[in-house]
Amino acid sequence: MKDTLDLFADPHELTLISGPCAVESEMQMRAILTGVNKPSLIRGGIFKMRTNKNSFQGLGDGGFDLIRKLQDEAPFHFVTEVTDPRQIELLLPITSVFQIGARNMYNYELLKAVAAFKKPVILKRAFSATISEWLGAAEYLADLGEKNIVLCERGVRSFDTKLRNLLDLGSVIYLKKTTPFKVFVDPSHSMGLTPYVIDAALAAVAAGADGLIVEVHPNPAQALSDGQQALSLEQFNDLVAKLQKLAPIFDKKLKV
Amino acid sequence: MKDTLDLFADPHELTLISGPCAVESEMQMRAILTGVNKPSLIRGGIFKMRTNKNSFQGLGDGGFDLIRKLQDEAPFHFVTEVTDPRQIELLLPITSVFQIGARNMYNYELLKAVAAFKKPVILKRAFSATISEWLGAAEYLADLGEKNIVLCERGVRSFDTKLRNLLDLGSVIYLKKTTPFKVFVDPSHSMGLTPYVIDAALAAVAAGADGLIVEVHPNPAQALSDGQQALSLEQFNDLVAKLQKLAPIFDKKLKV
Amino acid sequence: MKDTLDLFADPHELTLISGPCAVESEMQMRAILTGVNKPSLIRGGIFKMRTNKNSFQGLGDGGFDLIRKLQDEAPFHFVTEVTDPRQIELLLPITSVFQIGARNMYNYELLKAVAAFKKPVILKRAFSATISEWLGAAEYLADLGEKNIVLCERGVRSFDTKLRNLLDLGSVIYLKKTTPFKVFVDPSHSMGLTPYVIDAALAAVAAGADGLIVEVHPNPAQALSDGQQALSLEQFNDLVAKLQKLAPIFDKKLKV
Amino acid sequence: MKDTLDLFADPHELTLISGPCAVESEMQMRAILTGVNKPSLIRGGIFKMRTNKNSFQGLGDGGFDLIRKLQDEAPFHFVTEVTDPRQIELLLPITSVFQIGARNMYNYELLKAVAAFKKPVILKRAFSATISEWLGAAEYLADLGEKNIVLCERGVRSFDTKLRNLLDLGSVIYLKKTTPFKVFVDPSHSMGLTPYVIDAALAAVAAGADGLIVEVHPNPAQALSDGQQALSLEQFNDLVAKLQKLAPIFDKKLKV
Repeated sequence: MKDTLDLFADPHELTLISGPCAVESEMQMRAILTGVNKPSLIRGGIFKMRTNKNSFQGLGDGGFDLIRKLQDEAPFHFVTEVTDPRQIELLLPITSVFQIGARNMYNYELLKAVAAFKKPVILKRAFSATISEWLGAAEYLADLGEKNIVLCERGVRSFDTKLRNLLDLGSVIYLKKTTPFKVFVDPSHSMGLTPYVIDAALAAVAAGADGLIVEVHPNPAQALSDGQQALSLEQFNDLVAKLQKLAPIFDKKLKV
Repeated sequence: MKDTLDLFADPHELTLISGPCAVESEMQMRAILTGVNKPSLIRGGIFKMRTNKNSFQGLGDGGFDLIRKLQDEAPFHFVTEVTDPRQIELLLPITSVFQIGARNMYNYELLKAVAAFKKPVILKRAFSATISEWLGAAEYLADLGEKNIVLCERGVRSFDTKLRNLLDLGSVIYLKKTTPFKVFVDPSHSMGLTPYVIDAALAAVAAGADGLIVEVHPNPAQALSDGQQALSLEQFNDLVAKLQKLAPIFDKKLKV
Repeated sequence: MKDTLDLFADPHELTLISGPCAVESEMQMRAILTGVNKPSLIRGGIFKMRTNKNSFQGLGDGGFDLIRKLQDEAPFHFVTEVTDPRQIELLLPITSVFQIGARNMYNYELLKAVAAFKKPVILKRAFSATISEWLGAAEYLADLGEKNIVLCERGVRSFDTKLRNLLDLGSVIYLKKTTPFKVFVDPSHSMGLTPYVIDAALAAVAAGADGLIVEVHPNPAQALSDGQQALSLEQFNDLVAKLQKLAPIFDKKLKV
Repeated sequence: MKDTLDLFADPHELTLISGPCAVESEMQMRAILTGVNKPSLIRGGIFKMRTNKNSFQGLGDGGFDLIRKLQDEAPFHFVTEVTDPRQIELLLPITSVFQIGARNMYNYELLKAVAAFKKPVILKRAFSATISEWLGAAEYLADLGEKNIVLCERGVRSFDTKLRNLLDLGSVIYLKKTTPFKVFVDPSHSMGLTPYVIDAALAAVAAGADGLIVEVHPNPAQALSDGQQALSLEQFNDLVAKLQKLAPIFDKKLKV
């Protein structure tokens, strides 16, 4: 995989990263690679962090082999979460962008470890991280350079129970106006339920987000994790069409 | 003032209500009526609720006389907050739409009192009201009919201190998909600081909001309340231009 | 009823106010008056505020007549919530202490109205009121004098769903150290479930609370509101025994 | 150091762990070991997690050598935080109890790593962890056995700014009634300011806590971290005296 530094540097690009919560099987990943029109950025979890230790924890090494095989057939940028410093070197050959999940935003040892490799890092906001704490965590990545630090809003903890999290687009607006970092939004975890994901994605773009990370699954009902918030391929392509209409209003061009 | 029932009933209309936090003076109100291009809907507080009892509490009766005089010269719909059942009859002749503020969302006696008059009511969400509680409060207005009950998101209480409140556009998306009510957003109170208000307004429209309530002041630095979140007239007209471009993407037409 | 100003002024008194969420029937009230050993302070709702408008809203005028009859037989101080300025004069003859509920903490018109009568006022904290806002609301009662303003912590809104609210005893500690007001705690609403109420009451006393408001019902399973958090009479007397043991450690004497 | 499994198993023991936020110097640690009357349990950070990467990060290896030297002179149980799996073996010879800090509660890889060593683990609650998530994290420690898993409440994130965190004693009550785990409270981080720490500690005991972790410093004003919430030695001994009076009420005996 070629160098991916500055992959997100173009200020007029609206980045759309799609893929499943977890890499589950070859059939699943082929369906996504086929169903999403010429995807260049695909996400998928290989090591999963689960609140319940008996939940599916990801394919681990088998996931690595699968992604490498698919990339050999047709290259794409793979975005994946790293949950332990000891995983980084393993994941390096297949990974263009490392993701630090919400549970690890405060895991400064992990941040220091990942910053040593020259890849963009998507730093998800912890469940109730203040903006100051989030920016404090981003400082642990400073060696990568501003353009390679992506702050990803994914909803914060709330007193309300209708939705999974409380999407904080105010933070996106604030960060875009006051910091040099790229700001992405994950509408899937923010809302937690498929019927609300597309509207949340559109609102994020209007708030000024530079990119979106959206969970897509060829068969959401059968997903091993987070199926209730995944878009089907058809829904995903509907989102793409809407984003193509919306992006120019904000002087941006969609990159899937 | 003619009957205003169903004022907000057109699903393809994007309503923009503007005006100062508080009606302060004739000069102020004339500047707004002149500066906003052909306004049909103007907001302004006559009785203010203030956390600090020594803060400016509104003009009271003098505010009433001023609005009536201005409406006599050139009619406009006036939207104002009612904070006590005993104010309703006084405000009735000048008011097209009653607003229930966030502090009174749970004030069911007030809701029952206001529902007896045939005017649309904008019901602001309390600081940390769950969506269920908000809909429960709306039930106290049921006699008005669905089209005359407007739920207004204005940001909820948060652990973060950078912005005044946490704008919850997820609630807007949820309410539009699952209830028959109109949903407005108040980006001014949500963000609390002028530089972030316009982007919040655009995001609200992309989330599906039917309308916006925006604080405008001819001279924000001199405002007696909430000046730090008011748009100047120039900023307001910039917002109007942006909304005119954005609304058609969502199959709506702006009504100022 | 004699003058009740300064009813709570003794700093070495630990006040215990008990009674049902709502006054429901003569049988219910007699059971409580008999079951609680020589009660001098009894609470009970006559006008209830309910999230659902179809829930039991209190007995209203019938409740007034019942309490007056019982007080005529054997005097006791009655503590009840007022939810509308227009109720105050009606409730005055039977009421020693007015309570402002959490939903009305920001209802400044109501606070101003109640402050005109010379009775102690228990001001419950709103669901997510900051301490500053709470103290701001207390200022609207300033005419009563510090000793007649009781701040009552009743749990704040939380992201957790195991308990009804999040009991904030830190606020009690803070208020006792920095303000002249009396501070009570309502462990019933804080916890929301009977098995946890007694321990919460003990913790409140250890935090420095001047008093407790506890929901008691002769038959919690049959209560028309909040039965799941009411103590039975037996449980209540267990609480009394525990408080009598604990109070002297904090240089206080229990007053039931 | 002898085996420390079941160190906290006695249900009638009230454990008091004291010490500085960070191990800073020999003089500091000697002052604490002398000033606290016959301490058997001492806490102190050797590797610190700091929101600001330029803040003091702990002594690291030098802290290890210092603690070992002091333990050689007079044995005591040392309680310290582990922030990276790679630190565990280094810390093992001096450590009786491992602490997982709030920032790492969701760091399941770290939990799995620490559970492999037979030492009690104090699992602090993350800033806004639900009780379910906290118990989910505890499951990753299940191999240690119930008596060696200590859940430590340290205040949760709040909308209020007067205190550092919102002490959630309701969670302590809930956990004691429904789970087999030991439950400790950290009043220092909960309150964040010295004048409120002692009262919070007393309230925690009344809520049913099995133990307390309290920050003590011989000279709080000079502390390299968290001095504003540390007790002086004099204040600490005042706390000890109060706990000795309070513990028997709850059928417990204080162990410092």
